[in-house]
Amino acid sequence: MPTESAAAQGPDVAGLAIGVLGGTGDQGRGLARRLSMAGHHVIIGSRRAERAVAAAAELGGGRLSGAENRDAAAAADVVIAAMPWDGHRDLLASLAEPLAGKVLIDCVNPLGFDSRGAYALAVAEGSAAEQAAAVLPDSTVVGAFHHVPAGLLLDPAAVTVDMDILVLGDVRAATDLVITLVGEIPGMRGIYGGRLRNCGQVEALTANLVSINRRYSAHAGIRITGV
Amino acid sequence: MPTESAAAQGPDVAGLAIGVLGGTGDQGRGLARRLSMAGHHVIIGSRRAERAVAAAAELGGGRLSGAENRDAAAAADVVIAAMPWDGHRDLLASLAEPLAGKVLIDCVNPLGFDSRGAYALAVAEGSAAEQAAAVLPDSTVVGAFHHVPAGLLLDPAAVTVDMDILVLGDVRAATDLVITLVGEIPGMRGIYGGRLRNCGQVEALTANLVSINRRYSAHAGIRITGV
Repeated sequence: MPTESAAAQGPDVAGLAIGVLGGTGDQGRGLARRLSMAGHHVIIGSRRAERAVAAAAELGGGRLSGAENRDAAAAADVVIAAMPWDGHRDLLASLAEPLAGKVLIDCVNPLGFDSRGAYALAVAEGSAAEQAAAVLPDSTVVGAFHHVPAGLLLDPAAVTVDMDILVLGDVRAATDLVITLVGEIPGMRGIYGGRLRNCGQVEALTANLVSINRRYSAHAGIRITGV
Repeated sequence: MPTESAAAQGPDVAGLAIGVLGGTGDQGRGLARRLSMAGHHVIIGSRRAERAVAAAAELGGGRLSGAENRDAAAAADVVIAAMPWDGHRDLLASLAEPLAGKVLIDCVNPLGFDSRGAYALAVAEGSAAEQAAAVLPDSTVVGAFHHVPAGLLLDPAAVTVDMDILVLGDVRAATDLVITLVGEIPGMRGIYGGRLRNCGQVEALTANLVSINRRYSAHAGIRITGV
């Protein structure tokens, strides 16, 4: 039951179970860790259940479990897509049924790397998030968490993660829900960042953050000023 | 002659005259105003010299003048491209000769607008900056100043402009020069943001800032955290 203050801050998200598809990578484990610390039951998904169970056990805490991706999708109220880009379309398409009716948060960045660093890959649908929306017509896709450095999420010394998260989508209730989820992680602020058709450049900007990290030996994130 | 501290901070830019092509628009006048306040002679360029002269007179101060675009390009040491996107390629191509051997700072954002707001236009070369580089083979193109709200630049009440400017380019001496120029505007910090091949998403991100401004009634800019 939402309190008055919770209602004023946004949707009630306290009881939501969160699945993380491809959740054994750095980004997936980092988000799983921070969201479980915020009080959520988080189900890490992987192609192989035993890898997911091991990742959950390694992260520790009582609110993490592991499962095969399909079971993680089915058990969760809200699902994060954190698989590598090259398996993005096929994995999501295979899970359209358990993801139907749910909010799918896509944080995947289609990037290539060569001797000159990172660069944005061309995506036929415009962005990973729009690709997800194309293969998941019965889900509501939201883009978020593209820029957060996995190392910071996993670092026990990082008590807060001080950056803004651009939250993109075409359904206001879904972006509001994700903005509220983001705000549960100390230091993070969710900012509505536009419609899904403007998600490609947000994903691609990760290549610039890679360049910044290389030049300045940093873990760069972004803040939006003036808001 | 650079002082010791100036040398430690970056290239000596104090004496550089700066041209602003298409400089009678809001972004051009805003940058002209701030760079003249920083001590530079700034030549506002326009298709019609009288419009440029009028814009310079309206902005005031003794360091601003106006001229036809070609004369502004010829008279300046460093030139900013601030024309509308739909005249970008043709105007730059016509000025290849006076721009030869110079740093061209491109701040143009190829955006479209419809009933749902702003969106990024597809650019054959990948970005406005890469288009500039294609038509100006004898100039050194740097992308910068894409996200700064013109209203803030022009606002006499805005004593500082507190945001980071992503500076992109393939020639270190040129990006270092622009980073130093940016740092002359109080509150602004220039951050190397990657090579020109990663400029498209930086330009396109302006569409997201337009969405943010609309949702939050803001003048949004960005800061890079962790640097």
